Amino acid sequence: MCFPSSKKVYNYVSVIPPGGFAVRTFGEIKNIAVGTEFPSRAALAASGIHKPTQAGISGSTTAGADSIVVSGGYEDDEDYGDYIIYGGQVTADPNTKRQIADAELDRGNLALVVSYNKGLPVRVTRGLGSTKQRTYRYDGLYQVERWWADRGKSGYRIYCFALRKIDDKPILTPAGELPLPFNQEPERVKSYTTRIVRDTLVSERVKKKHDYTCQACSTRIERLGGAYAEAAHIKPLGRPHNGPDKANNILCLCPNCRVLFDSWAFTIEDDGKLLGAVKGILNEIETHKINRDYLAYHRRLYNEANL
Amino acid sequence: MCFPSSKKVYNYVSVIPPGGFAVRTFGEIKNIAVGTEFPSRAALAASGIHKPTQAGISGSTTAGADSIVVSGGYEDDEDYGDYIIYGGQVTADPNTKRQIADAELDRGNLALVVSYNKGLPVRVTRGLGSTKQRTYRYDGLYQVERWWADRGKSGYRIYCFALRKIDDKPILTPAGELPLPFNQEPERVKSYTTRIVRDTLVSERVKKKHDYTCQACSTRIERLGGAYAEAAHIKPLGRPHNGPDKANNILCLCPNCRVLFDSWAFTIEDDGKLLGAVKGILNEIETHKINRDYLAYHRRLYNEANL
Repeated sequence: MCFPSSKKVYNYVSVIPPGGFAVRTFGEIKNIAVGTEFPSRAALAASGIHKPTQAGISGSTTAGADSIVVSGGYEDDEDYGDYIIYGGQVTADPNTKRQIADAELDRGNLALVVSYNKGLPVRVTRGLGSTKQRTYRYDGLYQVERWWADRGKSGYRIYCFALRKIDDKPILTPAGELPLPFNQEPERVKSYTTRIVRDTLVSERVKKKHDYTCQACSTRIERLGGAYAEAAHIKPLGRPHNGPDKANNILCLCPNCRVLFDSWAFTIEDDGKLLGAVKGILNEIETHKINRDYLAYHRRLYNEANL
Repeated sequence: MCFPSSKKVYNYVSVIPPGGFAVRTFGEIKNIAVGTEFPSRAALAASGIHKPTQAGISGSTTAGADSIVVSGGYEDDEDYGDYIIYGGQVTADPNTKRQIADAELDRGNLALVVSYNKGLPVRVTRGLGSTKQRTYRYDGLYQVERWWADRGKSGYRIYCFALRKIDDKPILTPAGELPLPFNQEPERVKSYTTRIVRDTLVSERVKKKHDYTCQACSTRIERLGGAYAEAAHIKPLGRPHNGPDKANNILCLCPNCRVLFDSWAFTIEDDGKLLGAVKGILNEIETHKINRDYLAYHRRLYNEANL
């Protein structure tokens, strides 16, 4: 079902850097191309790809995980190249390396759940070669598509993370090595994307200010690892609207209200009164004021669509 | 803001084929590669890429739009190659080709809104050359990212559709022609994808059976062009779960309940009782029964995550 935990013991070193706060970069690291190989964990750390020199998960439980090292490498049964099932952090016996207690939703595991909640990109580095002669290859950006808890072969609880490659850069394999089995996941079910929810960098700040509570209907979606809300730009981003990516153009909404707002099913008057499918008053707070010009823009298009 | 409607008069021929029901294929057409050129609309129709010989939008108001022809071609200000702002169907004077009435959310416009609601892929064909010597090039699959209504330059209402290329196949331009200005949309705001909602082919049937009403909380998200719901696989698709893409493994949920269900915030007992963050009883209907094995699988992982 999940990794046999006796085979893989990851990440038993704390992810909190001993020096305290570390600057955490999510996404690409400048000048480090996908496929770059490193002779050691120290070299990998120095590059900025994966700063901890022992922990398999780099991250914090508030900001999320920015990077992992898959020690088992591509020989592993659960590594399909662009799709990885990654066993999380466990407590292991230092001698036998076997899991000796239930894994908890804390440290690296929680950091990866936060990355899932926020949709953050996670850098993946694979360990190559044998334990004695190991090198490390940076293989690009992945996203946590799903997470779950299950029993490992040891009988203890383990956290699992399904990661899918999100950049379009092929992994460069060294000469003589078999290429990674890309897209080898058998018969992926045919599907259509009905909705892609994107978060801009400003969105997180707005959502935090409202404690992830919907400004329209007051719903708060609580889930493990943190609450969930969506950020809706009132005057849309992109052409031809060219609304700004600024807090005064962003609402914190629950997914249901987001669908309605983007589809012109409700809009907002200057005094905060909701008009249309959602009733009530917009919850505006002192530290996050909405620009009335953007409300007027949305109202105009709402009227055009509904008249 | 939107297309100057006096410059572009699209799609004034009905999209309903005169013979009645037509088989409608969404997505790729077998053996027709992106970049294929056709000497005439008749040849384009015969290929199956775009069956109507005059209408710019191929589709139905229930199934959605499967294909459009962008007559203005790539010279148009609002054509950025992989991002197109497409003016919808208008009523035009047959002589002057000028818009003479407000556009309505019907026929081709409604078909494109349905494609937006369902996340269906839309084939895009561009008209090349002059009006006198026009050829047509199939340029691949796009998705309606957003739609809105606005006033055109004529003063009448017009429907607009922002389409983004979703396949990864470059458009092959004929020799001597300038390449299409891919990714020329200025400064797309940096963003992370927090959630991708995919629909499998079976999902639509399940949602229809429940009239798009959430089986957990009874919410029904009504919006223009049709209600919105999401389909959640109880035993997840893909490795290592390998849940089946069958109706008896699928729930019709509102977006809020979907987020909660996928994040182990609630689960369902065999008698339908909801357990966790959502209270109540699952609304199960005679024509759509859930397999209890899949409920047991979800409950087991719910318990592992929450214990």
